[in-house]
Amino acid sequence: MSDIQDSSDQSEPRYFVKALDRSLQVICAFSAESSEMTLSQVAARTGLTRASARRILLSLVDLGYAEKEGNLFRLRPRVLQIGYAYLSSLGVAHRGQYVLERLMEDTGESCSICVLDGTDIVYVARAIMPGLASIAIAIGARLPAHATAMGRVLLAGLPPDELDEYFQNAELKSFTSKTITSEAALRKVLKKTREQGYAYISGELDDTMESIAVPVTKAGGRVIAAMSLYTGRITEEVMLGDFLTKMRNAAKVLSEG
Amino acid sequence: MSDIQDSSDQSEPRYFVKALDRSLQVICAFSAESSEMTLSQVAARTGLTRASARRILLSLVDLGYAEKEGNLFRLRPRVLQIGYAYLSSLGVAHRGQYVLERLMEDTGESCSICVLDGTDIVYVARAIMPGLASIAIAIGARLPAHATAMGRVLLAGLPPDELDEYFQNAELKSFTSKTITSEAALRKVLKKTREQGYAYISGELDDTMESIAVPVTKAGGRVIAAMSLYTGRITEEVMLGDFLTKMRNAAKVLSEG
Repeated sequence: MSDIQDSSDQSEPRYFVKALDRSLQVICAFSAESSEMTLSQVAARTGLTRASARRILLSLVDLGYAEKEGNLFRLRPRVLQIGYAYLSSLGVAHRGQYVLERLMEDTGESCSICVLDGTDIVYVARAIMPGLASIAIAIGARLPAHATAMGRVLLAGLPPDELDEYFQNAELKSFTSKTITSEAALRKVLKKTREQGYAYISGELDDTMESIAVPVTKAGGRVIAAMSLYTGRITEEVMLGDFLTKMRNAAKVLSEG
Repeated sequence: MSDIQDSSDQSEPRYFVKALDRSLQVICAFSAESSEMTLSQVAARTGLTRASARRILLSLVDLGYAEKEGNLFRLRPRVLQIGYAYLSSLGVAHRGQYVLERLMEDTGESCSICVLDGTDIVYVARAIMPGLASIAIAIGARLPAHATAMGRVLLAGLPPDELDEYFQNAELKSFTSKTITSEAALRKVLKKTREQGYAYISGELDDTMESIAVPVTKAGGRVIAAMSLYTGRITEEVMLGDFLTKMRNAAKVLSEG
């Protein structure tokens, strides 16, 4: 506690969090649509004052995370190191890449690994089958948990209090006429997912997409990630027969418990 | 300038850069070997005082970028959003994924796109051929520019003053008996790379690896990225014949000038 008792430090922690939060907000304001922005555009997109936005942008330039050309700012590749630190610290993403590539060879279909973050699933590893007109979902991309097979496996693995918290925060948005959007119906599906040890979803996020997901567990059985295989051309019978067996074997390689 | 003239703000910019720098250092301290760390371990790895490390870790937890279990800290998936912002702001990575997948189908070999960051190349997109015992290089991974085909294409595209700066900073490390490690020899190779419009490398980073790379340019001809195809089983003739043509067509799709 000594650093908090020290009077000169008293306002620092709060300032510190704010400074860090705002800096990361500025980084995340850059996107495909706004890959280069002026100071005013960054201020407008983040809701920061011009003075704050300026201080942050110049700090990012100083540290090599951004660059300035004329009056336009853009991010630099050094930013990737930040996300890379997370991915390499996540064993399941690191070792998962290899496991996914073998699973893809074995099934001929694209597959992915996701973890849960709040009410979203986040892609941490994927193997895309060449030649399939699949959506190329990037590492770091997010989808709402409730409408995806991996999301259901991850939600089904939450302890009861964390699942209650999920329902407090989640907006169960509808994507197609089939999307489950009521808490009661979703709780029922999650119970079934837990019992059968997999989730199968068809046409709830997108009309043409089917997906099957199984859990990856830690010693003790806690679900730490989900692995899925997605396709729009395989029958439910094949998915739930041969493919499910292959996926369970792949997930076993990554699981600790 | 008003925010710098203001006396209450005078020390802020410097403090700010330091705070941001240290926070990002803490994030980047996590890795495959240190995916969970105590406060003392983070302090030791970053060279920060315990008090600073503690302030930063608690801020990261507050903001959802890290979590604490017992006395162990680990990163959370939210960190990926930071790198994702860069990747989606980089047109060549975004559109490049699709182009690489087509190139892989066409050649049957793994391929990648890199950009230059200081003396390293950084992977921003890749397509891994299933079934090849290829090294799965992750997005965000780095390799030294001088010993890679993509690095040579990127260095060959630098304006003279930036190339001089590169040689001031680069450590031309040897990886195999074939690695070019003298500035004079490398400058000669870069001149040739510029003239022929591609780089071909064999056994300089790794004894078994051959790689060919071509530039991706911006309107005006400035090299913004390099695209490569790597293999250990194709003859130089095929690489420099059919494959080079296919790669140049793929790079043309991504280039603006």
